[in-house]
Amino acid sequence: MGRVTSRRRVTRVRPGSPVSTRADVLAVEEPLEVRQGTDVLTVTMRTPGDDFDLVAGWLVSEGLVRETADLVTASYCPGLDEAGKQTYNVVEVTLASAVPADRLRRTLTSSACGVCGSASLQAVRVSSPYAVADDEVTVDATVLSSLPGRLRDAQSVFERTGGLHAAGLFAADGELLCVREDVGRHNAVDKVVGWALREGRLPLRGNVLQVSGRASFELVQKAAVAGVPVLSAVSAPSSLAADLAEESGLTLAGFVRDGGFNLYARPERVRTAPGR
Amino acid sequence: MGRVTSRRRVTRVRPGSPVSTRADVLAVEEPLEVRQGTDVLTVTMRTPGDDFDLVAGWLVSEGLVRETADLVTASYCPGLDEAGKQTYNVVEVTLASAVPADRLRRTLTSSACGVCGSASLQAVRVSSPYAVADDEVTVDATVLSSLPGRLRDAQSVFERTGGLHAAGLFAADGELLCVREDVGRHNAVDKVVGWALREGRLPLRGNVLQVSGRASFELVQKAAVAGVPVLSAVSAPSSLAADLAEESGLTLAGFVRDGGFNLYARPERVRTAPGR
Repeated sequence: MGRVTSRRRVTRVRPGSPVSTRADVLAVEEPLEVRQGTDVLTVTMRTPGDDFDLVAGWLVSEGLVRETADLVTASYCPGLDEAGKQTYNVVEVTLASAVPADRLRRTLTSSACGVCGSASLQAVRVSSPYAVADDEVTVDATVLSSLPGRLRDAQSVFERTGGLHAAGLFAADGELLCVREDVGRHNAVDKVVGWALREGRLPLRGNVLQVSGRASFELVQKAAVAGVPVLSAVSAPSSLAADLAEESGLTLAGFVRDGGFNLYARPERVRTAPGR
Repeated sequence: MGRVTSRRRVTRVRPGSPVSTRADVLAVEEPLEVRQGTDVLTVTMRTPGDDFDLVAGWLVSEGLVRETADLVTASYCPGLDEAGKQTYNVVEVTLASAVPADRLRRTLTSSACGVCGSASLQAVRVSSPYAVADDEVTVDATVLSSLPGRLRDAQSVFERTGGLHAAGLFAADGELLCVREDVGRHNAVDKVVGWALREGRLPLRGNVLQVSGRASFELVQKAAVAGVPVLSAVSAPSSLAADLAEESGLTLAGFVRDGGFNLYARPERVRTAPGR
């Protein structure tokens, strides 16, 4: 349970050196199934650890849970695998308002053909219950520039495996509030959001979410639904990430590296020194 | 239709330079909905372009299509969005054997609690119709080392946006057969597999699939289901990627960079010069 890394025998080939075989450390990836009674809500490939936060954050991201009290119980299914070992790969949840059957079938119902594109886009869009656009927080450019390095420093496992994405929640003054790792970048963000739900911190007004990779539509949506006004990514955003950030009133920073960055939406939340 | 990049106004902040605003190029991300009649099979966030190959490759990866003839028709849904524009974001397919209703509901049915973990893992596993383990191809270590650089050279868009994953199919002697890009690394692989289906090249015996990022369980599965004997990744594999490669008899290379690499499964397919 909760193993974040795992050892495997690896054959190393390096120029000018004899081929060698030795143990190496890999990031663990295992499926997690989320159930409501007998209904499977989702199966995600994740790195074990902070599983209840992952589930809670996923429920928030999907618009199924909004407050701590909405998630009544979350527990590992007590079943055993074929070898008689508890797998800790199935979490059963009870929600104050059970996920309705039509919502369960969301991805399996057809949308009207006459509005193909928009219906299709609607199907993947969850609207934020929070007025992210009204958040008047400002972040200093030097603080924003420092976040990727501080996220890396806080990552416990990346150095050993090179295989984990990270998401870090920071206060506007740069205080680190929470950092989570996962093989899936969306899972790392869900783990942070689930932690915030458990701590009664939603909406995440005035906070900055720093992610280790690129910014996709999905990550901007997760930030907006959790009420985060500033999302910062080490790498590039996609077109739809920039569009959704603009539409949601969320500040989106990308290519945050070497002391500089680009702002793709709502740049006025970032304070730059005169002459910079 | 098929726009791979898109221009957005960007605020640039760089140390020692005045803040400037200019147009920048982003990788396009849009939803693609795949339908069979009125049933939605999947919605994926993808970069437009090679959409029919993406759909075909996804169908192969899911075990729903095996030969070119299994995919009878694939066409854009002719619907319009609210602005009266064709979106090219919905593809309707006709399969020789329609996806059965119980398969459609795959992720929504409960697995028996007594075999939690394995049932959950079964739910995400698609077995390969090909005997990948028996493929006796060998690849020279210098050829394998050269593939990430050659993939980057063949990527048309990455340099401009920094936002696209790539997958490249190579012959064992290093000949480049097909390269595809996408915001989603799984989509880039599906586009390659769909191209191979269309070209009547499945199973991809004797070939090497090079990917630009990490190797997850999902990518190893896609390679195995398409009959690829060697998967090579620029970055780290996950534990389950290594396990599935071992189990499928697929050679898995990771950290392919600076002339060296690690082999996580079936290393004997890679020929190294004596003394190396």
